[in-house]
Amino acid sequence: MPRYPGFESKVRESFARQQFMATVGAELIRVAPGEVDIELRPDPRLTQQHGFLHAGVVIAVVDTACGYAALTLMEESAEVLTVELKVNLLAPATGESLMARGRVLRSGRTLTVCSGEAAATADGTETTVATLLTTMMAVRGEA
Amino acid sequence: MPRYPGFESKVRESFARQQFMATVGAELIRVAPGEVDIELRPDPRLTQQHGFLHAGVVIAVVDTACGYAALTLMEESAEVLTVELKVNLLAPATGESLMARGRVLRSGRTLTVCSGEAAATADGTETTVATLLTTMMAVRGEA
Amino acid sequence: MPRYPGFESKVRESFARQQFMATVGAELIRVAPGEVDIELRPDPRLTQQHGFLHAGVVIAVVDTACGYAALTLMEESAEVLTVELKVNLLAPATGESLMARGRVLRSGRTLTVCSGEAAATADGTETTVATLLTTMMAVRGEA
Amino acid sequence: MPRYPGFESKVRESFARQQFMATVGAELIRVAPGEVDIELRPDPRLTQQHGFLHAGVVIAVVDTACGYAALTLMEESAEVLTVELKVNLLAPATGESLMARGRVLRSGRTLTVCSGEAAATADGTETTVATLLTTMMAVRGEA
Repeated sequence: MPRYPGFESKVRESFARQQFMATVGAELIRVAPGEVDIELRPDPRLTQQHGFLHAGVVIAVVDTACGYAALTLMEESAEVLTVELKVNLLAPATGESLMARGRVLRSGRTLTVCSGEAAATADGTETTVATLLTTMMAVRGEA
Repeated sequence: MPRYPGFESKVRESFARQQFMATVGAELIRVAPGEVDIELRPDPRLTQQHGFLHAGVVIAVVDTACGYAALTLMEESAEVLTVELKVNLLAPATGESLMARGRVLRSGRTLTVCSGEAAATADGTETTVATLLTTMMAVRGEA
Repeated sequence: MPRYPGFESKVRESFARQQFMATVGAELIRVAPGEVDIELRPDPRLTQQHGFLHAGVVIAVVDTACGYAALTLMEESAEVLTVELKVNLLAPATGESLMARGRVLRSGRTLTVCSGEAAATADGTETTVATLLTTMMAVRGEA
Repeated sequence: MPRYPGFESKVRESFARQQFMATVGAELIRVAPGEVDIELRPDPRLTQQHGFLHAGVVIAVVDTACGYAALTLMEESAEVLTVELKVNLLAPATGESLMARGRVLRSGRTLTVCSGEAAATADGTETTVATLLTTMMAVRGEA
């Protein structure tokens, strides 16, 4: 459970400062305790050599969703930092929409472990394209 | 050792088709057997909430460097796909330049294991900001 | 779905040949399509410096559960090999029993991605002590 | 640099309390600042279904080498805990000897990032069989 009422606006303000999220056109869809969803509209500017979404873009949005999911459960003054992440890419990312979901598996005082996934929707069918396991760190003061 | 003379032009042509690399302003610096370097100029459009390069951008360029390092040692008709990657973020990425280096650790017929790193140069000093361990797959025909 | 009826006996025979599983006292509990559970009784011979189960033992049984979960969905003549794994250790492993669960996330012709977890039961309460994400490979003939 | 003279005896005493290291017959070969080597003699009791060393055993000794490499650079009162690890298995582990080497990549106040490798020697030839990237945590008091 978040330890303070303003966790959602803290996440939304931080997300709004991420210029890279604006650059790729990502949108913060949902902020709940331990759960954050971010949506991305695939765009030719974001593709790799075969026309699919670049793995780096997919990872960027899932990493961001996981980081903010972790942040919702940290104390109010904390900032969040990605310590490390591991991702398996399961299918090419294409379609009308990519939904990145970050979920807290275990929340500690310093470290938070999250799982994440990215699911692409094409012609109304959702396919999981990436699954992620990551460690986030609470930092006090500015990161 | 690459099995055919045109491995460098194959990598360069594939890199040129990656629109996301153009979007972030990444440049292919060096293509050698089992080794690829890519440089990125940090830019406000690529930042996270504290003004550092977004982890997703850092991962994207190191992943790309590793993928092409793997491709140099695959057979001529193969394409390369990232199966999975793991990255530890060691320091905030900032400065004038980010150099991503991909190196093949073990090259197999189907799978190639690579290590990668990203090093940021600020005021003439280079700092390793990320270290990466990844598995690449050779795919025959289009990925 | 397994492609042949004898998938369970194939897994059980292979498990029986793993002398290390006998050395640590692991027992194959359940074999279902894409799902394998292995139980371990913590023992002083398996501990690290603070008296908890050694991380290596925990990883060994979850890795084995994931490998056999993958094997159930491979073709009959295939053997399975761990390409790579990533594990987050969430809590010290102690108690009367450790249950390792391997589950297939995505089954491909050559590669299979699995998630795994280890849960320790102490005084009737189960705690997840490790979560794992791994890539398995089908090899034809002997590995 | 270790912050106190007794770092080596601290590591050796902790290693001696790891009953699992005795169970697999692992020997602490070298303890230097940020570097620890552990040797293992392959034995039928430690094998998987094809007669090679079980991946869990390989991972256990490399994880232990990395943990103690990290511990040498932590403050005197700290204990070390594996947060997470990622390993790529590069070749079957067999032969007369397995050497596990843990090296610190970056040492922080709370977290330490290490790389590790396991090399098997057979008929006088050394082969790298596993490469590992891991995050260790300093814990004050008992873990």
